[in-house]
Amino acid sequence: MQTLHVELGDRRYPIFIGSDLQPQELLAPYIKGQQVMIVTNTTVAPLYLNHYVTAVEALGKKVATCILPDGEKYKDIQHLTLIFDALLEAGFNRDCTVLALGGGVIGDMAGFASASFQRGVYFVQVPTTLLSQVDSSVGGKTGINHPLGKNMIGAFQQPQVVLADMSQLNTLPERELSAGLAEVIKYALLGDVEFLEWLETHMEALVARDPAVLAEAVYRSCAHKARIVANDEKEQGERALLNLGHTFGHAIESYLGYGEWLHGEAVATGMVMAADLSQRMGWISAEDVERTKNIISRANLPIVCPQIPLDQFLAYMAHDKKVLNGQLRLVLMKQLGQAIITKEFDLELMKQAILANQA
Amino acid sequence: MQTLHVELGDRRYPIFIGSDLQPQELLAPYIKGQQVMIVTNTTVAPLYLNHYVTAVEALGKKVATCILPDGEKYKDIQHLTLIFDALLEAGFNRDCTVLALGGGVIGDMAGFASASFQRGVYFVQVPTTLLSQVDSSVGGKTGINHPLGKNMIGAFQQPQVVLADMSQLNTLPERELSAGLAEVIKYALLGDVEFLEWLETHMEALVARDPAVLAEAVYRSCAHKARIVANDEKEQGERALLNLGHTFGHAIESYLGYGEWLHGEAVATGMVMAADLSQRMGWISAEDVERTKNIISRANLPIVCPQIPLDQFLAYMAHDKKVLNGQLRLVLMKQLGQAIITKEFDLELMKQAILANQA
Ligand SMILES: NC(=O)c1ccc[n+]([C@@H]2O[C@H](COP(=O)([O-])OP(=O)(O)OC[C@H]3O[C@@H](n4cnc5c(N)ncnc54)[C@H](O)[C@@H]3O)[C@@H](O)[C@H]2O)c1
Ligand SMILES: NC(=O)c1ccc[n+]([C@@H]2O[C@H](COP(=O)([O-])OP(=O)(O)OC[C@H]3O[C@@H](n4cnc5c(N)ncnc54)[C@H](O)[C@@H]3O)[C@@H](O)[C@H]2O)c1
Ligand SMILES: [Zn+2]
Ligand SMILES: [Zn+2]
Repeated sequence: MQTLHVELGDRRYPIFIGSDLQPQELLAPYIKGQQVMIVTNTTVAPLYLNHYVTAVEALGKKVATCILPDGEKYKDIQHLTLIFDALLEAGFNRDCTVLALGGGVIGDMAGFASASFQRGVYFVQVPTTLLSQVDSSVGGKTGINHPLGKNMIGAFQQPQVVLADMSQLNTLPERELSAGLAEVIKYALLGDVEFLEWLETHMEALVARDPAVLAEAVYRSCAHKARIVANDEKEQGERALLNLGHTFGHAIESYLGYGEWLHGEAVATGMVMAADLSQRMGWISAEDVERTKNIISRANLPIVCPQIPLDQFLAYMAHDKKVLNGQLRLVLMKQLGQAIITKEFDLELMKQAILANQA
Repeated sequence: MQTLHVELGDRRYPIFIGSDLQPQELLAPYIKGQQVMIVTNTTVAPLYLNHYVTAVEALGKKVATCILPDGEKYKDIQHLTLIFDALLEAGFNRDCTVLALGGGVIGDMAGFASASFQRGVYFVQVPTTLLSQVDSSVGGKTGINHPLGKNMIGAFQQPQVVLADMSQLNTLPERELSAGLAEVIKYALLGDVEFLEWLETHMEALVARDPAVLAEAVYRSCAHKARIVANDEKEQGERALLNLGHTFGHAIESYLGYGEWLHGEAVATGMVMAADLSQRMGWISAEDVERTKNIISRANLPIVCPQIPLDQFLAYMAHDKKVLNGQLRLVLMKQLGQAIITKEFDLELMKQAILANQA
């Protein structure tokens, strides 16, 4: 088991990363109070809920559960309310802990509920998708969607502890595993060419879910995110690097309709477009673009998207929140493994990069 | 105009207290960003909304409004959602300001919305009831009710600035003015016998809404609350002093059904019971109890409550959140103008104090 300590704001918390983690032992020092609400969904509950209920009960805590329907479309205020209902029906007070057992959707909802219930109770995260392990574990963002926008309502809420158990990834659908790998590859492309080389060596093991290799990838990814976020807690600058591939990806997701392509899949193709544009700008080589496409393909992720009319693609890109004062800012690669945030790109070349990577 | 600076957490903000305040001038340095959402209700909007819209527009800001139905019963998640709808329909971003124009209900809802929208935007408070001026202006608590409990869901959110305008109190119904005076009297009874003497001299002027005298009362009340809250940000100890009269009052409110008696009215009679018990404990004199009843009566507040069966009264008291580990803690007076939090009271004497102050 590896432990990564995240130093953020006024608090410090550990992410425990390994296989067959023992929640009873690991959670014991971090669960405050006597009441624990485990929030999960209908897919994850039959797989892992009993294990956590047993472990937390063995700590002498009163445990209650809240099982939400599975899906991004339920990440809304109506379903958030179900968590508050469960907390109050269980008679929980301001000393309770909310434990999120599930992917990013559950983490976001349980996290926001824990930030708002009684104006803030304790939060513990057990991310069960690769994407939530490498992304939601760090940064403290929680939130829900509104019909007029994703993640519009939420809070910053740091967990007491995060348990990232590679054994739980065995039940993850293949596409979800790959979607998580897209974010892993992102960390390499935006800031760590040595990590990219490591991924090139270990991609088969990752896809085969070798737990030790997965753990190493999760550790490195979380460490990257923690460093970037710590340097830029207020989201003024460096943190935007984490959006590599996301502005293009956002356009793909929006055009196809959320849910058609997974977020990670759209980001994967978006990173190809960002690499392609970086090459057209003369910053990276054709070989660098090939390496980018290659590692993405080997993660079973798409490197081209369906044909999308250019005007619509651009309109969706401009809707993206990375637009500052009407001026589009993109995350591109100054060199392979070194991303920058810039408004200084050629619009024509951008259009070419988009069109060149459609099926 | 008087200015009180509240020093709390990592931020400092001013409360401007006076008559016919000029919002344009006063708000100018404190409104960040270009977008301002004014949240108010159907009672306050026809009285004061135009004035604020004009003032904020004169600062060159884009102004939108959200007018909620009037009443505590609408302080819920459904009506909170209307504020998010309005913010997103107006196209507001994370640099916007939410301005609460109204009593404590509007302050709580707009405050929580501002804490959650985009994970936190700016917040400005214009409390238009005496109660919200002396209570909601300090402490940063915001929140909404749940069918299973009041103020169960919320956030801590400090405003950028508070404008407490005595002129706006002229339209306040008499009972609401008196309810605010109950909380003013509370500050005197719990910690400032000199303020009590001042109130004894000025109660007629307060009831007659003399703006200069009201402003002085608001200033002193906010200063008291600010001092207590600053000493005890985490609500471990001293802050509980602010609940003087509230545990008894809570029982009255609950038994009568919320809305029958105003909160301040129930607190008023609750303070009489607390004083009575303090005398029975031998801590204050019969004359002190008379002074307590006297100042409360002169504020047109009730000093006795309807007959409530004792077992029900006690059950409601025990439901109150000041119950710690099943042991009832009460705020009583060690001397007039000096409250303490204690479990060391005689249960029989408490019952006598309750029964002695029923009609
Ligand atoms: N807070 C943050 O910092 C942050 C970061 C990234 C993403 N997010 C949010 O996270 C969400 C995406 O997260 P996600 O990709 O984990 O999606 P998800 O939570 O929807 O999980 C994907 C699917 O996998 C299932 N699942 C989860 N764990 C499983 C397991 N161990 N075995 C089998 N199936 C399992 C889920 O039930 C779901 O059907 C989005 O809502 C996004 O906005 C938040
Ligand atoms: N956040 C805090 O620290 C805090 C502190 C105390 C109370 N509160 C909350 O505040 C609420 C009580 O506040 P309140 O007593 O102001 O109640 P309120 O907001 O319901 O206002 C009382 C009535 O007065 C009306 N009104 C407001 N301003 C007026 C004006 N200038 N002229 C005429 N009518 C006016 C309102 O529309 C309402 O009908 C409760 O929900 C309570 O939980 C919060
Ligand atoms: Zn992403
Ligand atoms: Zn009160």
